Amino acid sequence: MAKNKTLVLHSRPEGMLREENFQVVEREVPAVKQGQFLVRVHFASLDPGIRNLLAESSGYWVPTSLGEPLNTNMVGEVVESQHTDYRPGDLVAGTGALQEYTVFTPGPMTWKIDSGSRLPLSNHLSILGATGLTAYFGLLDVGKPVAGETVLVSAAAGAVGSAVGQIAKIRGCRVVGIAGGEEKCRRVIEEFGFDAAIDYRNKDMAQLMTAIGEHCPNGVDIYFENVGGIQLDAALGHMNSGGRVPCCGMISQYNGEGGAAMHNLFNIVAKTLRVEGFLCHTYSEQFPEALRDLEQWVAAGQLNHREHIEEGITAAPGVFVKLFTGENQGKTLVKVLSD
Amino acid sequence: MAKNKTLVLHSRPEGMLREENFQVVEREVPAVKQGQFLVRVHFASLDPGIRNLLAESSGYWVPTSLGEPLNTNMVGEVVESQHTDYRPGDLVAGTGALQEYTVFTPGPMTWKIDSGSRLPLSNHLSILGATGLTAYFGLLDVGKPVAGETVLVSAAAGAVGSAVGQIAKIRGCRVVGIAGGEEKCRRVIEEFGFDAAIDYRNKDMAQLMTAIGEHCPNGVDIYFENVGGIQLDAALGHMNSGGRVPCCGMISQYNGEGGAAMHNLFNIVAKTLRVEGFLCHTYSEQFPEALRDLEQWVAAGQLNHREHIEEGITAAPGVFVKLFTGENQGKTLVKVLSD
Repeated sequence: MAKNKTLVLHSRPEGMLREENFQVVEREVPAVKQGQFLVRVHFASLDPGIRNLLAESSGYWVPTSLGEPLNTNMVGEVVESQHTDYRPGDLVAGTGALQEYTVFTPGPMTWKIDSGSRLPLSNHLSILGATGLTAYFGLLDVGKPVAGETVLVSAAAGAVGSAVGQIAKIRGCRVVGIAGGEEKCRRVIEEFGFDAAIDYRNKDMAQLMTAIGEHCPNGVDIYFENVGGIQLDAALGHMNSGGRVPCCGMISQYNGEGGAAMHNLFNIVAKTLRVEGFLCHTYSEQFPEALRDLEQWVAAGQLNHREHIEEGITAAPGVFVKLFTGENQGKTLVKVLSD
Repeated sequence: MAKNKTLVLHSRPEGMLREENFQVVEREVPAVKQGQFLVRVHFASLDPGIRNLLAESSGYWVPTSLGEPLNTNMVGEVVESQHTDYRPGDLVAGTGALQEYTVFTPGPMTWKIDSGSRLPLSNHLSILGATGLTAYFGLLDVGKPVAGETVLVSAAAGAVGSAVGQIAKIRGCRVVGIAGGEEKCRRVIEEFGFDAAIDYRNKDMAQLMTAIGEHCPNGVDIYFENVGGIQLDAALGHMNSGGRVPCCGMISQYNGEGGAAMHNLFNIVAKTLRVEGFLCHTYSEQFPEALRDLEQWVAAGQLNHREHIEEGITAAPGVFVKLFTGENQGKTLVKVLSD
C-alpha cells in the first residue's frame, strides 16, 4: 500500500483548463490522525466548481497550492479508523484529497452509506450525493416552487439541472430547460420529462429572449441558475413579480470569461426578485430526509439520471477538461479502485 | 375650483430626461366616485423611479400615456369624500395624479395622518413616508442587520440612503456610504453620522474596489443598493459570506444606460449572497409600527433628514430633471397649494 496515485495541480490554468494543468503522481498513503479515517476510494466526483480553486487567488476560496492534491467528493470503504463512528468495512461518502487511499476528516458532507441501499455505490456521488442534494435544496428550499408555476432551468441536460427539472415536475410545475445542442434538448424532453427545451447555441441575447418568451408564455417564476452570462440576463428579462433565482453555479464564468454586460438586472428591483446563492452542505441536518425522497423518486422511475464514469485517476486530467467543453453526459465520475 | 393645474407627459424621453418631456396643463377638477375622495394637495413627491413609467414600454410597468397625468405620492387635506373612513378636513397621504386637486382611491400607500404629529406635513412624504419606510423595511426586513456588521450604502447622501445608514447605526452596525463629490461625502459623515464615506466620482471599477476594501476592512455584510452599475459590481466583490443586498433602485439604469459589464456576479454563488428587490407597499400592515419608530428617532435627533422643496406644480418639470443630475439634496418635494 505504499504507492498511492494522487491527482495534483501542476500549473495554474490561464483561461480554459488544459490537461497539462494536472499531474498524476505517486504519494505515500497518508497517516490517519485522531478523528479521521482512511478510505479506499471507489469513485471520485469531478465538478466544474473545482476550477475556482485552481486560480492564483480566486478571492472566493483558498486556492490549491501548486504540487498539492485536488480535493473532491468521493465514496469508498473505510480501511483504518481513528474515529469512533466509523469502522473498517463501512461504506462512506466524504471529501478529501483525490487519491486512491485518502483520509476523511468528517464534516457536513461526510456520511455513512446505508449498506441496504439498492442503488449502486456511484449514485452516492450523483443523484444521492451532492448533485441530487444541490438540486433538491436549491429548488425546494431556495426556489420554493408552487404547483402550476413555471420553472426555467439552465444546463438542463446536466446532472444538477436535469434533477431540478424532474423534481419541479414532481411538484406540479411547468418546466422548461435550456441546453446546448439538439441532442441535449431532445434528452431534456424525452429522458428527463421537461415540457420544453431551448437550444442556446447560435442564439444571441435577443433570440434567447424570444425563445424563452415563446416557451414560457406565463413568464418565469423560478430560474435555476447554473450558467451566468446572457442566459442569466435573458432569464431575468422574463421573471414574474416575486420570482426566485436560486444560484447554483455560473459555469460560463469559471474560465475567466467574466464581465458579461447585463441588461436586466433592474428587474431585481422592478419585479421584487430574490436572487440567492446557496451551498448544499449548509442543509446537512436535513440530508437524511432528502436522501430518502431522492432514493424513492429514483426507485419509482420519476427521477432519471446519467453517470459518465471513466476509468482510473490517470483519466482525471482529460475528464476535467471535458467538463467545460460540454462533451460529457450526466454526472462525471472517475472509478478509482475496483470494488 | 374649475381650473386645476396638472402635470402631464408631453413626449417620451430618449436617454436623459428633459424638461420638454413634461407639460403643465389645466384640467377640470376630477369627479369623486364611490370609495374615493378628493384631496387638496399640499405637497407632492418627485421620485427617480417615475422615470420608468415614461418609456414606451418599460416591460416592467404599464407606462404613462402621452398627454396623461403622472402619478405620484402626495399629502393634503380631504375636501370631499365618497369613502366612509375619510372625511373633509382629514389630513392624508396617498397616491394619485399629480394635480392641485386630485382623487385618491385608497390602497396600501394611503393613510390618515395623525393630526397630533409634531412633525411638519411634508415629512409624511419623506422620512415618515415612502422614503423612510423604504429605508426601514429594506434595511431591517430584507437586510436583517446584526450589531457589529458592516453596512455599505450607495446614494448615501440621498433621502433613502441617508436614512438607511442612520438606522443601521441605531442598530449598532459600522456604516460606510458611497456618494458623489466631496460635499456629499462630508454630509454623509457630519450630518448623517456614517463612519466613513467614499466619493465615487472620478473612480473606475478598480479604484472603487480599492476604496471599498480600505473602508470596509472586515468586508461588507449588507450592501444597500440604490445605484446599479459599477457600484453594485464593486460592492459584490467585497461581500462576506451570507451577505445581503436589498435592492431599492438602480438609478444609473433609469435613463437607458443599462448593459453594464458585471464582473462579480459569481459572488452570489461563491459567497451565498441574497440579492433581493422589495417594495415598501407590501409591508403596509406594519406601517403603524414603523412610523412610530421613525417618528421617535427623528424626535430624538437620531435620524436626520433634508427636504428639498420647490414651489408650485409649474416647477415640477425642472425638478424632475435635477433628480438625475445629482443637484438636489434630500427628498425632493414640490409644494403644490399653500396650506
